[in-house]
Amino acid sequence: MKNEISIPTLKRLPSYYNIVCNALGAGEKYISSASIARVLDVDDTQVRKDIAAIGYAGKPKVGFDLIKFKVHLEEYLEFDKKRKSILIGAGNLGIALSRYQGFAKYGLSVVAIFDNDPLKIGLKIADKEVLSLEKLKETIVENNIKIAILTIPSNKAQETTDMLISLGIKAIWNFSPIALDVPSDVFVQNQDLGASFTTFVNIASIKNII
Amino acid sequence: MKNEISIPTLKRLPSYYNIVCNALGAGEKYISSASIARVLDVDDTQVRKDIAAIGYAGKPKVGFDLIKFKVHLEEYLEFDKKRKSILIGAGNLGIALSRYQGFAKYGLSVVAIFDNDPLKIGLKIADKEVLSLEKLKETIVENNIKIAILTIPSNKAQETTDMLISLGIKAIWNFSPIALDVPSDVFVQNQDLGASFTTFVNIASIKNII
Repeated sequence: MKNEISIPTLKRLPSYYNIVCNALGAGEKYISSASIARVLDVDDTQVRKDIAAIGYAGKPKVGFDLIKFKVHLEEYLEFDKKRKSILIGAGNLGIALSRYQGFAKYGLSVVAIFDNDPLKIGLKIADKEVLSLEKLKETIVENNIKIAILTIPSNKAQETTDMLISLGIKAIWNFSPIALDVPSDVFVQNQDLGASFTTFVNIASIKNII
Repeated sequence: MKNEISIPTLKRLPSYYNIVCNALGAGEKYISSASIARVLDVDDTQVRKDIAAIGYAGKPKVGFDLIKFKVHLEEYLEFDKKRKSILIGAGNLGIALSRYQGFAKYGLSVVAIFDNDPLKIGLKIADKEVLSLEKLKETIVENNIKIAILTIPSNKAQETTDMLISLGIKAIWNFSPIALDVPSDVFVQNQDLGASFTTFVNIASIKNII
C-alpha cells in the first residue's frame, strides 16, 4: 500500500504529524481537515485525499481524533524504526544538525560525524567524537549504515559522494548547493537552503506579502 | 503573469536554476526536458509544463539554450532584487545560515543577527555583529526589513514571532520545529529539518533503496 502513495502526499505527512502534535499540546481532541488545510496552505480536498491515501478516516462533522491520528501517522511513517545515519562535515551546519533535537521523535539518529580537518577530529559534538574520514569504512560496515548527511563544501561534494557510495551508502541527504551524480540505485535528496529561501521569498511576493 | 504560476511549480524553479548552472559549469550549451526530469525525479511533461508556465520555450530536438534559460530564470525569480533579512538565533544553525555562501547568488542577504544570550551579543559572524533583541526595532525600521529567519528553540518561537510581527515583519522562514500562529497577512514557511529527514528516508524506503 505504501508504494502507491504519491511523493507530494508523502512530503506533507510530517507536517500533518506536527500539526497533530501541536493541537494535542494545546489540549484539543479533534481536528478538522479545514484547520489542517489552513495551516498547510493547501486545499481542504487535498488534505482529505492525503489522509485517505494513508488509510485513515475522520468522523463526519467531528474531524480526526487527534490521538488515533497521531498513532496512525507514527506507524505509517515508521517512527518506531530506528534510522541510523552518518554525517559528513563538522562545520556549523553539520554541528547544528548533529545537535538538532527534532530528529529523535522521528526515530532518526546520527551515529557518527566525520571531517577531514585535523583541528576538528577528536572534538565532541552532541556526545559523539568527530572522526577522520579514514574511519568511514569501519563505521559504515559495523553499523550497517545506508544513510549519509552531507554538509561539506560544494567542491568536495562529488568525490565524497563517490567514496560513500563505494562503501555502501544508498541514500544521501545533500546540503551542498550542487547536484550530485549518482548511480540509479542511490537516492539523493537535495536540501539547497538558498533555493528554499528564494522559494519562500517568491511565494511571499506572489501573495503580495512582501 | 507571475500570480498564475502554481506553488509546486514555483518550488521547482530554483532546482531548474541549479541544474542549468551545473550544466553550464560542465561546458554544455543545451539541456533537454528529459535530462532535467531525470535529475528532479519528476515527469518530463511536468518539466515542459513548468517551463512553459514561466514563459520560456526550448528548440524542438535541441532543448533549452542554457545561457538564455539561466537569464530567463534569474529575471523571473528576480535574483537582481536584493532581499534583505534579519536572522534571530545565533546558535549553530543560525551561524551556518549567516555564513551560507549559497544565498548571495539569489540576491539574498542577512543584514543583522540577533540573540538574547549576553555571551553571544557582540560576537562577529560573517562580518556582522550579533545584536541584542533590544536593537530589533531600529534595525527593522532603518532597513525596512520584511523578512526574518527564525533559528531559535521551540519554546521561544511564538513570543519572538509575535514581537517580530508587531515590528513589521511580514514573512518568516521558520526553522523551529513548531507551527507558528500568525495573522493572515503574514507568511510563514516552515523548514522543519526533522520532517525533511523523515520524508527523505520514507521516499528512499518507497523506492526500496534502504
